[in-house]
Amino acid sequence: MNPRVLQIPGSLIRQIAAKRRPTSINLGLGEPTLSPTRAHLDAAVDYVARHGLRYSPNAGDPALRDAIAGYYAYPEMDRGANVCVTVGSQEAMYVTIKTLLDPAKDELLVVEPAFPSYVKMARLEGVDVRTVAMSDAKDFAFDASRIAAAIGKRTRAVLICSPCNPTGRIMRGQQGELLVKVLSERAGRPIWLIHDEIYREQTFVDDAVEFARIYPHTIVTNSVSKSNALTGLRLGWIIGPQQFVDQAIKTHAWITSCADTFAQAVALNIFQTPGAIAEHAEWYRRQRDGVRTILDAGGLRALPIDGSFYACVQLPPGVVSVDAAVALIEKSDVLTIPGSVFGTCFEGWLRLSWVAPLEQVHEGVARIAEFCRIATL
Amino acid sequence: MNPRVLQIPGSLIRQIAAKRRPTSINLGLGEPTLSPTRAHLDAAVDYVARHGLRYSPNAGDPALRDAIAGYYAYPEMDRGANVCVTVGSQEAMYVTIKTLLDPAKDELLVVEPAFPSYVKMARLEGVDVRTVAMSDAKDFAFDASRIAAAIGKRTRAVLICSPCNPTGRIMRGQQGELLVKVLSERAGRPIWLIHDEIYREQTFVDDAVEFARIYPHTIVTNSVSKSNALTGLRLGWIIGPQQFVDQAIKTHAWITSCADTFAQAVALNIFQTPGAIAEHAEWYRRQRDGVRTILDAGGLRALPIDGSFYACVQLPPGVVSVDAAVALIEKSDVLTIPGSVFGTCFEGWLRLSWVAPLEQVHEGVARIAEFCRIATL
Repeated sequence: MNPRVLQIPGSLIRQIAAKRRPTSINLGLGEPTLSPTRAHLDAAVDYVARHGLRYSPNAGDPALRDAIAGYYAYPEMDRGANVCVTVGSQEAMYVTIKTLLDPAKDELLVVEPAFPSYVKMARLEGVDVRTVAMSDAKDFAFDASRIAAAIGKRTRAVLICSPCNPTGRIMRGQQGELLVKVLSERAGRPIWLIHDEIYREQTFVDDAVEFARIYPHTIVTNSVSKSNALTGLRLGWIIGPQQFVDQAIKTHAWITSCADTFAQAVALNIFQTPGAIAEHAEWYRRQRDGVRTILDAGGLRALPIDGSFYACVQLPPGVVSVDAAVALIEKSDVLTIPGSVFGTCFEGWLRLSWVAPLEQVHEGVARIAEFCRIATL
Repeated sequence: MNPRVLQIPGSLIRQIAAKRRPTSINLGLGEPTLSPTRAHLDAAVDYVARHGLRYSPNAGDPALRDAIAGYYAYPEMDRGANVCVTVGSQEAMYVTIKTLLDPAKDELLVVEPAFPSYVKMARLEGVDVRTVAMSDAKDFAFDASRIAAAIGKRTRAVLICSPCNPTGRIMRGQQGELLVKVLSERAGRPIWLIHDEIYREQTFVDDAVEFARIYPHTIVTNSVSKSNALTGLRLGWIIGPQQFVDQAIKTHAWITSCADTFAQAVALNIFQTPGAIAEHAEWYRRQRDGVRTILDAGGLRALPIDGSFYACVQLPPGVVSVDAAVALIEKSDVLTIPGSVFGTCFEGWLRLSWVAPLEQVHEGVARIAEFCRIATL
């Protein structure tokens, strides 16, 4: 078998999550608890009744590609030809990494803490990965100088998830502009920015940077999974310069042929309904304010929540995050995700999702605080 | 960018298909013209109304995995753990090739004529491909001796699509048993059989071989696309020994995470409804009989139609199949697929799909016969 596949370890997150009981407080979940809007699904059912469920073009339904490009209206990437519709943002990222990087000579720079799949996807393709850790002392804020300093001779792309899973931090105006300035002023072949915008509709600051607006060598991945509570629909996309997207479509075509036609009809209805992409944004804003209040009262060090639906809390010195997560689910019945899965720089932290009802978030944080109190004794 | 992606040529099939007009007789189509059964979709809509659209486990809904494994009941592969649910059979085949073969040392043997994506997928992964051509003199019937003789030192897997796209031939009892005998008696590491069963429900002979019943090192790929007119649903699966499937699930997880939950609910209803997988089989049998009558009267050399929904006709000596297909769509307004895209051994042939109404198939075959008559003058 393929040794690169054999080397992929089992998912630690899933091993811990498997310990969950029906009674557990679930702060581990990486998907919305809201229900999707029925009208989007009804529109897709109507579409299927009229047209059946035929293959779409490899790159996706032209009307959907146009709608996505038009909605974001990123400069020079605002036409349907700039969009490849994919099987969720997972395939969007996989296709992007596989298409953009030459395993023989290119290196991917991943800004950490980061969702572990980026590094694993690159390794699966034989692409070398370098990571750059944001600083605990700065609450893991995105730091353009630090990122720029980590760029090596073989770095061909920098991967940034902002709003960030797990930290909840966002690359903001000045830092984003600084990073783009450094990249733009470099000699030689351009370095690409891969911007995972999956938590774009959970943004709680006013100056979030959208790299596609200020740097032409940007590739954006996104989906309707988090914005519209449609994780199971598997409908995402790549937006980028046409020269890149034309190649990405070929990769995508050989891997999955095309995205689900039903799912594309759902997404088309979302993009054709004014405000629908942001239909859950207000709920997240209110929920986040409630979570901030809970955390402020909890006595734990927590990172600022600029965006996403995660909060991160620090464990007492010397407590290993995997041990803490195991103890918390086994003894306190609270599911959390250990920071170390997001990079060694995030050891000593826990990621909490806050999509559960606030009472549960409150109770979960109280149990974590108690766990930390006892661990400190 | 990745040179392996850059080297992928544009699709010749799509270039020819792009010349199609509203008036064209479409004998190029690789998907059913039937409509899907509404009840399967309604069941999925009900599921979504009750459960939302959440992520499924990477390997798929456990109930669906059980249902698929139980339906086919392949020996030693009859449990849910033997199944990985995928994004159509395209991802099933991609994941299989990527997981099974080590690009550093393994070689894939593809039995041609064959759907071109097998070779292209392997090349995308850097896996060497060897092809073995079935014989024109034997009407491109599957020939076990020929396949066995083509196995090289580095051959790790043999890929067979039976019923075959494009030839419509099926690997039948004696030949299938002979191939398994040769493989079983070989010394050294076992050679795998990858059996693409995508046209299984379009089988018109009684002794079609299902390799998974007679050879333990078999991996099956399939989907509901052709059986239930659900090409756009993108719901397929891998069935194989658990040791392999466990690894395939990891590959699948990093590429697409999981298949669409709506699509899985559709498929679950199909597998839980007695006879539903074969619900269109009788239509294909009748249509095939009609097509045989048309071909017998048409004066062209055509291959036997053991299965699938294709018929293949031979062009006059010296006529290049791409030229013929271009001329036929431009001048005779009939869309066909040139044989050469399925391997050099199939130059001089055209593939016709026969999912259009029989009057159109009749008229299309008449125009092809006229084209051949003039070309022979």
